[in-house]
Parts: sequence; C-alpha cells; structure tokens
Amino acid sequence: MIISESTLRTFTQNIFLSMGCSEEHAQLAADVLIRSDMRGIDSHGVARLSGYVRLWEKKRINPTPNITIVHETPTTATVDGDAGLGLVVAPFAMKIAIEKAKTYGSGWVAVRNSNHFGISGYHALMAVEQDMIGYAMTNASPLVAPTFSNERMLGTNPMCYAFPAGNYPPVVVDMATSAAANGKLEIAQRAGKAVPEGWIQSADGSFTTDPHALKTGGSLLPLGSNREHGSHKGFGLSATVDILSAVLSGANYGPWVPPFVSFLDPPNDPVGLGIGHFLGAMRVDGFRPVDEFKSNMDNWISRFKSASKIDPGQGVIIPGEPELEAEKERAVSGIPLVDAVVADLNELADRFGIEKIQ
Amino acid sequence: MIISESTLRTFTQNIFLSMGCSEEHAQLAADVLIRSDMRGIDSHGVARLSGYVRLWEKKRINPTPNITIVHETPTTATVDGDAGLGLVVAPFAMKIAIEKAKTYGSGWVAVRNSNHFGISGYHALMAVEQDMIGYAMTNASPLVAPTFSNERMLGTNPMCYAFPAGNYPPVVVDMATSAAANGKLEIAQRAGKAVPEGWIQSADGSFTTDPHALKTGGSLLPLGSNREHGSHKGFGLSATVDILSAVLSGANYGPWVPPFVSFLDPPNDPVGLGIGHFLGAMRVDGFRPVDEFKSNMDNWISRFKSASKIDPGQGVIIPGEPELEAEKERAVSGIPLVDAVVADLNELADRFGIEKIQ
Repeated sequence: MIISESTLRTFTQNIFLSMGCSEEHAQLAADVLIRSDMRGIDSHGVARLSGYVRLWEKKRINPTPNITIVHETPTTATVDGDAGLGLVVAPFAMKIAIEKAKTYGSGWVAVRNSNHFGISGYHALMAVEQDMIGYAMTNASPLVAPTFSNERMLGTNPMCYAFPAGNYPPVVVDMATSAAANGKLEIAQRAGKAVPEGWIQSADGSFTTDPHALKTGGSLLPLGSNREHGSHKGFGLSATVDILSAVLSGANYGPWVPPFVSFLDPPNDPVGLGIGHFLGAMRVDGFRPVDEFKSNMDNWISRFKSASKIDPGQGVIIPGEPELEAEKERAVSGIPLVDAVVADLNELADRFGIEKIQ
Repeated sequence: MIISESTLRTFTQNIFLSMGCSEEHAQLAADVLIRSDMRGIDSHGVARLSGYVRLWEKKRINPTPNITIVHETPTTATVDGDAGLGLVVAPFAMKIAIEKAKTYGSGWVAVRNSNHFGISGYHALMAVEQDMIGYAMTNASPLVAPTFSNERMLGTNPMCYAFPAGNYPPVVVDMATSAAANGKLEIAQRAGKAVPEGWIQSADGSFTTDPHALKTGGSLLPLGSNREHGSHKGFGLSATVDILSAVLSGANYGPWVPPFVSFLDPPNDPVGLGIGHFLGAMRVDGFRPVDEFKSNMDNWISRFKSASKIDPGQGVIIPGEPELEAEKERAVSGIPLVDAVVADLNELADRFGIEKIQ
C-alpha cells in the first residue's frame, strides 16, 4: 500500500506517545523514522517501529529519559542517554555539538547508554542546516566478523559525513561499513533469492550466497569482502566506529553491544552502558568563507557528475543524491509499505488501541 | 641489500639538505620517510625520495616554505604550505591541531598548497603521543574512478585514525580508500604477475588482472571493487577525503590534483593551490578519563585478538599491529631495499655529490 507522509507520521507519533514518550520526544522520534522512509531507506524507517516497542516492553528502552552531559570540555562532551530512544538521544547530542561549534569552530559528542538511532544521515544533516560539516556514527548489534574470523564481533556500524553545497543539494556519505547492509539481506530473504558472493560467510568462514546463513552461525563480511579486496579496511572502519562510539563514551562495544532484537538478551557481562554513538559538527567558515566553500562544492559535484561513463545510461551518482530523489518523489506520491510492515504496524495499533492505517 | 636505519636516515637527510631544506626540515622529512620504511610500508619511504627531488627540480616543491595559518577559530585552522614538502607541512599542521586540542578539547586543520605527505599514520600518531585520538588524510594524484565511471577522478586518498591504548600498542587504522593501494600494483608490475579481479579496470571499464592497465587508460577501483560489493562506499570515503582535504582548504580536488610524477604537468586550470590534507586531534580526556579509556581499549584489543579463527594459524589482526611488528624487527635487522631503489638512491647521490649507500 501507499501511505501519505502525514498519515504515517501521525500514526508513528501516536505509537511513541502510547509508549509514554513526551509529545516533543514522540514528534522527534517519528520525524527520524519518517525521514528514513521518505529518503527510501525503508529498512530503517517504520519497519523498525515494532522493534522499538518490543525493546520498550522488555524495559530496555526508557520512554522518559533524563539525558545528561556527564563530561565536557569547550568542544567535546560525553552524553548519557539514560537508556532512551537513540532517535531522541542522538539529536540531543548533535545539538550540543552544533552549539559548541558555533562558539569554538567544532563540537564532538560521544554518547553512551543509548539505543539504535535510525539513519546516520538525519543527524549529520542537522549540522549541514547550520552551514557546518556533519558527522554521525553508531555501533550496533554484532553481525559482522573481522577479517580472518568467523565470529560476529561488530555491527554494520554506519558512518556518515554530510557537506553543504550551494546550488546542489548536500553531499551525504551515509554507509554501513559492512559489504552489504542488513536491510539488503532481509530483502533477499523475503524474496528467497541468493545474495552475491562476498556479502556473507557461513559458520565455517566460507563465502555463501544463502541469505539465511546468519541463522546458522554465519556472519556478514566487512566492506571489501575478503583480505585480497581490502576487507581489513572495512574491518578498520568498523573498528573506528566502535571505538569512537563506545570505547570513548563508556558504552558497550564489539560483541557486548546489546542486540536490537528483543528476543535476544544483552550479554550478562556488559563492559559499558547501552549502545554508543559519536556525533560531530565543524563550521565551514572555521576554514574558509562559506560562499567560497559552497561554490567549490558545486564545482566538485558538477565535475563528478560529468565524469566519463562506462554505460552511457548510468552516470556517477553523487552520495546523497538517490535519497534526495526518493524524498522528492515520495513527498508527491506517498510512502510505499510492503504488506509485512503494514501488518506489523496494525498489530501495534491493536496493541495500543489506536486507529489502524488503511 | 639491508641497510641500517641510521645510515639510511643520514643519507636521506643529506638529500633533503642538498635540495636546500633547512636542517630542521631535512631531519623531519627524513624522519617521515624512514618511519614508513621501518613500518614496512616500503612504497611510501625512501622509494619515493627521487620523486620528491624531481618535483623540486621542476620547481613544484619549495624547499624553504613559509608555512602560515591563513584562517582560524579556536579549534579550526587552514594552513597554506607554500608549496613545501608535505612531509614538513603536515607535521606543522598537526602540531597546531594538537595545541588547539590541549586548550579546547579538539583541533582540526585543513591544509592547502602542499605536496605528498608520506604515510598518514606518522601524522596521526603525533596526537597519540599526547593521549589524543589522531586523524590524518590527504588527497592525491587522480588514479581511481568513481563507481559507474572509467575516468580517473580521485587519488587513493588515504585516511587514518589512531587511538592510544594501555598495555597494547596504539590501534592505527591507516588505509587507502581504493580496493588496493598503488604500491601493491607496483609490486605486481615488477614481478610481472596478474592482480586479483576487482583492483583495476581497463579503459572500457571492465575488470582486468593486468597490472599495467593504468598505462593504457585504465583506473584503480574504489574499496568495494564494484557496485554490488559496495564500491559506492569506497567512492564515498574517497570523496570525503577529497572534500575535507581540498574543497575545505582551498587546494586542488578531484581530477585537478597535481600528479606526483614530475613527467606529468599539473592541470593548467587549477581550482586551488597544490594538494590538500586534513588533520585532527581530540583529547581522550575530553570524553572520559584517560586510564578508563586505555583499559577499555586494552579489553577491546584483547577480545578481538581472541575472536574465533577460520584458519587456526591466522587470528584477527589488530589495525597497526603488522606495522609495529615490522618496526621492531627492522630496528634489529635493518631495512631491506630492493635493487631498483638502491640504484635510484645512488643516482641521487651522484646528482648531489654525496656518499653512496653501500
């Protein structure tokens, strides 16, 4: 079915309100999820709403968190999310980074005791609106094995850089540090299709094309897929996200990161609090005048868009461009939801006694 | 041949002195190159010395630069390298980042009008010595094609994060954002061996295993190798390095980056000055006490080292570990140089009338 942005937004807010979130938090959390659906990142939007509810039912998400700064210098801070929704905690932290950047040129905030924060791009783009460069990353449930290992030690640990441009839209590099995001695997699972070699390995560490291999002890592979093609680099990037997000903040890292799925309990020997994020903002005019930067960004984008093509029908895609295209299109045509997600949302409606989506 | 660190260091300093560098700059530039050889990154050490000399002969490297800060806030700065050696300019900029971090928690410096800066790890590790997290990247001569293009638009654009640990050595993620570094290609060229599919493409955009394909219009591929395996992520990372290093600083970016090889002239329509770097430092105790961070880093490292192995003979490699192993070994056994590099260095000795290496 196709649903309008506003209908889905109201529905989502009502679910968060039913969990006991404040009006402000419900609006913000819904905004992060809806923005993901609008940008075509369906795996991170309302498809995850029931996941948040189940974590709340298990008392692993606190709907009324007292989010606090626990450590600080003029340009750095550590925030404790009080087990709140990452959808709310991360924007809180990004606002601190932006305020610090306004005064001192840059601001960097490590977050502990949080939960999944939705799409990195949402948070990084908050900085771009202030003519700043935005930076957002989070660790996540362990699904990815380091090079030479068959053990799930890391999440798909996304990192995002967002840069303002002038006439062009912002450049948004928002990527899982694994070869394939978990969402792509789920699509193959639902379709019963094989996945390309290099996305996952089976329990014995050999490549497999079975999208269900994670259920039998398999693991996702880091970006690069194998050592020969640079999987140690994907591992290094994922490690960087894990260290900045969690070792620096005091959150759980590596295999200790609590799973997003509520049917798996968090490890009983935590090394920190909740999951971790890392957010940053740098004022463009801390380096050069904004108009100079933006006109050079426009030149950068236009030159890359005109790079010679292998297939005449497919030019270079500027990072962030497909998401913006989706956002424009869905603003007009609405958000498509697959049947499984509609059923999932309507179960939540039943659960909380609110109106179903049609 | 095998040569001792001190002999090679003195030789290298003498070459830089012969170019007209000050004693201080010659020592520093030699230190960066020798550190690369010591760490086993032979492609970025004295093997490049003659390259720097040839750029100096073409007056593209200024041996007596007046390196200046051209723009600044409490935690950000832009440095103009005055066409100096990147080996000297980058440490200058990193010192500024570290000083800013001491006062404000973090420091970030974009650099324009520079030249190749050697290994990123050298600069990032300067911060680690101060119990800071170090960050270093540079753009480079265009050799890499973006996803869907067969045009060389980006360098191998390395990025480095370095983190202090406690009992373990620092974690140093130092990586080209291409599937394979150019140095690996050169090794295959010398050995006349095919390279794995996914490293390079020929002029028509198809995978090739010919290590010489770059000479006939081919290009290196971004980390991920092709779209299906995430090359758009490698492209996004490389773009990030290019934008932070050059669009932010006012250096040349993308296909306008001046080539490292002196026989190719820089584009005659520059969009900035020289090549660009980006360096940063964040105080660990800007986020949590240093001892807490370091003991958690040790726990992170030890847990990853004990991750289950696919091949019982090969455990997970912590980023930075192989380089440190090389450094320890070469401190005892000396630095191995291939014949071509020895011949190259002795030609320089002839050129400047200094003593040859034996």
